[in-house]
Amino acid sequence: MARQTVKALLNSTEKDIEVSISAWVRTKRGSKNVAFIAVNDGSTPHNLQIVVDLEKMGEAVVDKVTTGSCIKAIGKLVESQGSGQKYELEASSIEVLGEADANEYPLQPKKHSLEFLRENAHLRFRTSTFSAVSRIRHTLIFAVHNFFNSRGFYNIHTPIITGSDAEGAGETFNVSTLDKKNPPLTEEGEIDYKKDFFGKLTNLTVSGQLEAEAAAMALGKVYTFGPTFRAENSNTTRHLAEFWMIEPEVAFNELEDNIDLAEDFMKYLIAYTLENCHDDLVYLENRIIEEEKNKKAEDRQPMNLIEKLKFVVDNDFERLTYTEAIEILRNSKPNKKKKFQYPVEGFGTDLQSEHERYLVEKHFKKPVVLTDYPKEIKAFYMRQNEDGKTVRAMDILFPGIGEMVGGSQREERLDLLVKRMEEMHIEADELWWYLELRKFGTAPHSGFGLGFERLVQFVTGMGNIRDVIPFPRTPKSAEF
Amino acid sequence: MARQTVKALLNSTEKDIEVSISAWVRTKRGSKNVAFIAVNDGSTPHNLQIVVDLEKMGEAVVDKVTTGSCIKAIGKLVESQGSGQKYELEASSIEVLGEADANEYPLQPKKHSLEFLRENAHLRFRTSTFSAVSRIRHTLIFAVHNFFNSRGFYNIHTPIITGSDAEGAGETFNVSTLDKKNPPLTEEGEIDYKKDFFGKLTNLTVSGQLEAEAAAMALGKVYTFGPTFRAENSNTTRHLAEFWMIEPEVAFNELEDNIDLAEDFMKYLIAYTLENCHDDLVYLENRIIEEEKNKKAEDRQPMNLIEKLKFVVDNDFERLTYTEAIEILRNSKPNKKKKFQYPVEGFGTDLQSEHERYLVEKHFKKPVVLTDYPKEIKAFYMRQNEDGKTVRAMDILFPGIGEMVGGSQREERLDLLVKRMEEMHIEADELWWYLELRKFGTAPHSGFGLGFERLVQFVTGMGNIRDVIPFPRTPKSAEF
Repeated sequence: MARQTVKALLNSTEKDIEVSISAWVRTKRGSKNVAFIAVNDGSTPHNLQIVVDLEKMGEAVVDKVTTGSCIKAIGKLVESQGSGQKYELEASSIEVLGEADANEYPLQPKKHSLEFLRENAHLRFRTSTFSAVSRIRHTLIFAVHNFFNSRGFYNIHTPIITGSDAEGAGETFNVSTLDKKNPPLTEEGEIDYKKDFFGKLTNLTVSGQLEAEAAAMALGKVYTFGPTFRAENSNTTRHLAEFWMIEPEVAFNELEDNIDLAEDFMKYLIAYTLENCHDDLVYLENRIIEEEKNKKAEDRQPMNLIEKLKFVVDNDFERLTYTEAIEILRNSKPNKKKKFQYPVEGFGTDLQSEHERYLVEKHFKKPVVLTDYPKEIKAFYMRQNEDGKTVRAMDILFPGIGEMVGGSQREERLDLLVKRMEEMHIEADELWWYLELRKFGTAPHSGFGLGFERLVQFVTGMGNIRDVIPFPRTPKSAEF
Repeated sequence: MARQTVKALLNSTEKDIEVSISAWVRTKRGSKNVAFIAVNDGSTPHNLQIVVDLEKMGEAVVDKVTTGSCIKAIGKLVESQGSGQKYELEASSIEVLGEADANEYPLQPKKHSLEFLRENAHLRFRTSTFSAVSRIRHTLIFAVHNFFNSRGFYNIHTPIITGSDAEGAGETFNVSTLDKKNPPLTEEGEIDYKKDFFGKLTNLTVSGQLEAEAAAMALGKVYTFGPTFRAENSNTTRHLAEFWMIEPEVAFNELEDNIDLAEDFMKYLIAYTLENCHDDLVYLENRIIEEEKNKKAEDRQPMNLIEKLKFVVDNDFERLTYTEAIEILRNSKPNKKKKFQYPVEGFGTDLQSEHERYLVEKHFKKPVVLTDYPKEIKAFYMRQNEDGKTVRAMDILFPGIGEMVGGSQREERLDLLVKRMEEMHIEADELWWYLELRKFGTAPHSGFGLGFERLVQFVTGMGNIRDVIPFPRTPKSAEF
């Protein structure tokens, strides 16, 4: 008999048929005469209830059926009387494929802390919370590819190991095969990277944008979706040393087109998840309600999870310039009452999380797109405005998260780009190929980056970024 | 007027309408009175012909329109008389967005060697060959996600930076933030990795399989699709230091299910590409025919590209055991005539590329699945057969490529796995979590790995793996 999934059985159009299921035991309860075994195989957030007639089958058959064990059950799919599901399985045979000693199995049927589950990241896929997060994470991955593919974008695999940290986006990880204890040295006594695997100093990428620009300046519309790395010693709920980024880049797009694309993209991803992961979202919504029930009303999330997601899909993002935002912040109550940790003085101030959250959560109460930032606080490749002060940057700020998307129109004019690189002490030699994109057939183009884990955090409502990626990499932690 | 793509214009259902296009110039030709400009924007392998009436518009308008320049043209979409396309554009205005000095632009309208294009990887997206490869690569990426998503698999992002090289799959790249010149030392004079970013020695992953197994043993059906790394000093047309791998892993699947999945998967990917990239495949097929026209008949590919792809889709893969294959090879003409570089003596011989290609290209003339290899030449995690000699491995061999897929049923029995790890000197301590998957709720499960670039090579017919990934990483080369 062919094995079926829990999802297929719970959605069956037939009943009173013989079926076979293999799955992991979540709970077992019952009496002397009957045992109820709830099993899950990851295909759905719902468990299938297996009913075992102990009088008929003997008590020994469920002796080794414990939480965490893996069983194969054959029996009849019948309408359920009270399990909360449409169907349950009346077992005619139970086979234990893999035991789980109740004295040793870490995941007992009780509430475990997220910290404890992180230490057992190999097993946390078996919990209701992390399996829901995993299904939603997958759904978002597929939605990303589906969105771009249907709009004529090409996915580009930009390199992970790079020969330059030209973007200067932060500290990088060095990649090497040199003997660390006795590295080869040059005559001057420096490390001789010519003898390293790639014949030069190499690092893990911080962004695929520059390479994506090369592809866009030929293929038109491209996107990357790959791992990126920051060797920052940030032990926060929002930072990972290894995280996934999505970076679309589009030839001939100007900043407004870029914002339109980003807004459409975010709404599509969230709407797709609402449509395809409803039960998982309900589970996670209830989890948050449960978690917050002992908090004071003002400390709770202002909206429930699904309401929050629908709100993003249904409302236009607020668009304004950085300069306009600074005015709002300067005149805001918390700034005047000196409640901000970093006071907002005027043009040039780099926005902190507290400012971004004020704009999004208090002032506009929806996602906010800020544009035209001071050039001093943005990257060298952003297109310079005629005011000589600002660049065509855009950041999209989300409630609870802060910056979700960061992008810009790129500086396509060779002379202005070279001048800006000189001002910012960026080596033109290393980026000879990036400059050639401006030298040969240059054109306006724009793109943005979306930190994938921040998106998964927003959609699942998980408070800590380490709980939305299977095996998080953070300072002093690379287990598994 | 909204910008349109070349693809949209060539497939237009309307004609004699005003349209706007921005694209790169492939060629310009013509006479005193009229100029024909072929442009491409990456949306299709076909160029759009722009016709410029020089008598009306003046000759100066096309002065700076050179190969590689980027132009914006507005005009009327009309039926074409002779361009080989349905439509062409009668320009009413031409604007040069970005020039490309003919004396400096590397990609002149002539045939460049693939080696030369590799040195200009930032520009080769603009060639017919590499843009066709890029579109096919994208199509295969999307097909991978589509196949698994529609079958209830979840994509899992396994870690890139790992704390163990437990699989022993080859030499690895070290990832570190330690000062190489003056690294911190322990009291014993060894490098003190406790002071490194992750507090231990870390490497770039060689495979996501072990972590994918953890996910499969809870979520049922999962797959990875991410970059993997080998620090092997192999300068061949088949090896990259950084390449992308697809690794599905399925709970409860036995070896036969695993082979069925792999065969369905390969056929789906190729059929999807045949359906969605026909024109690109025709271009690449003609490229190969052109390249081989000076070769002797017996040195040419036995089948044209599209014929070869259809052949894989339409035929069952041949399945046999390693032991049966050894008998065929031992009795084969090249073995008896000592034509093999590595003679086949009997059970235990590790198959070389020449043997794999004999089986696929000469003996069976179709993809071949070999199973049940000697345990000595396979990894520790493969399920041991009752003969005590072989394991439930499977390799799928493809014409021209050799090994395309490698997989196995995994050893799910804790005692047998621990014993095998001891025999192979693999540290159980480092893999405590992998062993716990067998200790708690173990179950049969299987999976395989597909090297994505080998697949793109097969589908595009490109001879060198460096020409199917945007920015290849190989020994002494990490440019861009």
